[in-house]
Amino acid sequence: MIFDSAAQLRRACRSGEFGGATTGHAPGRIQANLMIVPKSEAFDFLLFCQRNPKPCPLVEVLAPGVREPASAPGADIATDLPGYRVYRDGELAEERDEIASLWRDDMVGFLIGCSFSFESAVQAAGVPLRHIDQRRNVAMYRTGIACEPAGIFSGEMVVSMRPIKSRDIARVVEISARLPIAHGAPVHVGNSGAIGVVDIDRPEYGDRVEIMDDELPVFWACGVTPQWVAQRSKLALCITHAPGKMFVTDLEG
Amino acid sequence: MIFDSAAQLRRACRSGEFGGATTGHAPGRIQANLMIVPKSEAFDFLLFCQRNPKPCPLVEVLAPGVREPASAPGADIATDLPGYRVYRDGELAEERDEIASLWRDDMVGFLIGCSFSFESAVQAAGVPLRHIDQRRNVAMYRTGIACEPAGIFSGEMVVSMRPIKSRDIARVVEISARLPIAHGAPVHVGNSGAIGVVDIDRPEYGDRVEIMDDELPVFWACGVTPQWVAQRSKLALCITHAPGKMFVTDLEG
Repeated sequence: MIFDSAAQLRRACRSGEFGGATTGHAPGRIQANLMIVPKSEAFDFLLFCQRNPKPCPLVEVLAPGVREPASAPGADIATDLPGYRVYRDGELAEERDEIASLWRDDMVGFLIGCSFSFESAVQAAGVPLRHIDQRRNVAMYRTGIACEPAGIFSGEMVVSMRPIKSRDIARVVEISARLPIAHGAPVHVGNSGAIGVVDIDRPEYGDRVEIMDDELPVFWACGVTPQWVAQRSKLALCITHAPGKMFVTDLEG
Repeated sequence: MIFDSAAQLRRACRSGEFGGATTGHAPGRIQANLMIVPKSEAFDFLLFCQRNPKPCPLVEVLAPGVREPASAPGADIATDLPGYRVYRDGELAEERDEIASLWRDDMVGFLIGCSFSFESAVQAAGVPLRHIDQRRNVAMYRTGIACEPAGIFSGEMVVSMRPIKSRDIARVVEISARLPIAHGAPVHVGNSGAIGVVDIDRPEYGDRVEIMDDELPVFWACGVTPQWVAQRSKLALCITHAPGKMFVTDLEG
């Protein structure tokens, strides 16, 4: 089933009734990547987001210890996502369906924009997106593009890739540029080797997607970047959403 | 004398040769409000800026203890401004011409955009600005517009006001909206009572300026806001530039 209402979807996550990917649910509502770090690392991470707005566009930063976002009154970031990942010392330690039992008063939640809003806008303009038509996750790659470091956080940008027909590329750039909260304009068009993508047929995250002869791969900064950077920075503790299992806000966008 | 080069101006501040207002110097270079807070308050203050981008557009945030900005290689934020103010427990404690002797390794410098860039753009479009023609400081007012609070930082927005002819208002809005780093579009046009300005003839900061019959007062978010908010929040220690004595970066804008 598809949840029309963001609040209904969040309640179904909280009760354990729903644990799937959030794409396609609560159409028109902004969905967000979740990143939780201890207060001791929160300044560095907020500065990382401020210096890298394309991979890390901030939807909301919650005060330390606070679990109810202003962007979704009544919600709880510790229970209302379909799934979570817990990283310890830079390693994936466990995947869980709630983190209320791990919550500490020094934890700071960051909600970071995701690509769903711009994908809807691109489709509404009549440009097809193959991974959505094939019901797959988008293909994501590690690159050699260095992020601006901030304190303990440093590392390379992760990008998502969508094959776009040459005639549609300019339009897709224009549409996505208008949505900075959904990563904005692409960071690269074509020529994947130039940004350090090792093998276009083997994405490091998500699913491979075919690129046709009349298409070019178009690359956008990706919200998986902070997870990768937190891993590389060997952060003692960090909690994120599980891939594809976003926090659904009440914001329209 | 007018310094053409930002680096020359900064060196003259450092040697004590120059201690005046920076407006009109180093034309074309972005000037910035300075705000220095201890690391213990830096997350709250960065979050305050992130939540209030109109009064607090970030040009750069320096790492804790660092005095040389990326926006001005070779510069030193502790010596290269014409004047500084030191606030203790929310009270103005002293005005100084350097703060190197007060510097601590836990201090975090924030460079916040100022209105000079948009004033240049407005004048270049042929719209006169009376306070500049009369060589006065811009008129600034406390308002009843609440900023989005963040941790210990809360308070009302300070605005600057420029009288603009009715026929020029839309153009001035368009020009300033394109410069978010210089506070962006106005927050209010006309009707000063509606935003809680007590007496348009008695600005709380800067100099009074006359408003002619064919003009309306146009209000922009002002970089004095964080100083006022830090005072209201009774911050134990905070250091800012002295009014009108900005940090001049090498950035073009």
